[in-house]
Amino acid sequence: MLTKVVSIPTGNLPTAVDLTSEALSFVSELGDGLLSVFVPHATAGLAVIETGAGSDNDLLAHLETLFPRDDRWSHRHGAPGHGGDHVLPGLVSPSLTVPVIGGHLTLGTWQSIVLIDTNVDNPIRQVRFSFLGSN
Amino acid sequence: MLTKVVSIPTGNLPTAVDLTSEALSFVSELGDGLLSVFVPHATAGLAVIETGAGSDNDLLAHLETLFPRDDRWSHRHGAPGHGGDHVLPGLVSPSLTVPVIGGHLTLGTWQSIVLIDTNVDNPIRQVRFSFLGSN
Amino acid sequence: MLTKVVSIPTGNLPTAVDLTSEALSFVSELGDGLLSVFVPHATAGLAVIETGAGSDNDLLAHLETLFPRDDRWSHRHGAPGHGGDHVLPGLVSPSLTVPVIGGHLTLGTWQSIVLIDTNVDNPIRQVRFSFLGSN
Repeated sequence: MLTKVVSIPTGNLPTAVDLTSEALSFVSELGDGLLSVFVPHATAGLAVIETGAGSDNDLLAHLETLFPRDDRWSHRHGAPGHGGDHVLPGLVSPSLTVPVIGGHLTLGTWQSIVLIDTNVDNPIRQVRFSFLGSN
Repeated sequence: MLTKVVSIPTGNLPTAVDLTSEALSFVSELGDGLLSVFVPHATAGLAVIETGAGSDNDLLAHLETLFPRDDRWSHRHGAPGHGGDHVLPGLVSPSLTVPVIGGHLTLGTWQSIVLIDTNVDNPIRQVRFSFLGSN
Repeated sequence: MLTKVVSIPTGNLPTAVDLTSEALSFVSELGDGLLSVFVPHATAGLAVIETGAGSDNDLLAHLETLFPRDDRWSHRHGAPGHGGDHVLPGLVSPSLTVPVIGGHLTLGTWQSIVLIDTNVDNPIRQVRFSFLGSN
């Protein structure tokens, strides 16, 4: 298994960062197998969505509605409402698997691999790419 | 890695299509390993739920509540409310992994692999099955 | 592929059970590869979240809000509101993949692998660990 950790700047606002080009460059010299994308943080997740046509912002707005930044959360560290960031990975998993064929991701035309980070206190995140192949 | 794409008719209404028999026939001649199911579309996802006892319709109704077909979405292409279809994969992932032992899926008695497609504009969808095994 | 099923007591209340130590002991003698965690039940899911600081209860409370225990569900078997337990795996998947390096899980400092079981009628659950490696 090949594996690599990359650092992703996410800034201080809830954000959706397109990881597709990093994923592509990781698998481009490889053959057939499974790409695992894994975020080793408790307040971020991964989504496979279209980017650049509004849906990334729609998802962030939807998550803001689902996980309001108020005092309902028993987890009380960090910025106001940060407890909701800790619930997010329960619905937006930090683990994702994408098949790879001949060094190409099998994503559809409109799909991108996106890091979802609503945590405003950590401006840099790690993402692990791993490849397990049959050759 | 063995991999295969199948076409699944999903019609013009939000729908949950049971893929279990397609998955079973894909792995039936194989040994031990991991089955990856992946939907290469930006407006569909995969769920492992019971079918035939109301839960597939319950899930579709719940998603209709979560992603209302109104004008809240900044993504504005397609049918009314279609922007919500593009947020769905953020919560209902298009990627799923199921262990396979001796050519059998390790699903529980009441579990089925289900394609969730709320997009009413695309009546046929692709699903990719991939198998990575140890023999 | 190595695979093993463990029994997890979940009691008669909605619960989040930390599976990290079971996962660690399963992979500790193994090398590099992918750990698949799979729950063969139609009313449970897996989450990677922080435990012990309130977020496990926050997630359970949030799921109670998302899937109210009332009569909205067409699936009507079991305890009141049990139909919602059957929708839960559509959003909290029963399948999870975690990279393993040198017999260590690549979880972040604050991440735990957690079984989410809101079903109050089944006090014992099965969880399958499978490892597919390159050596």
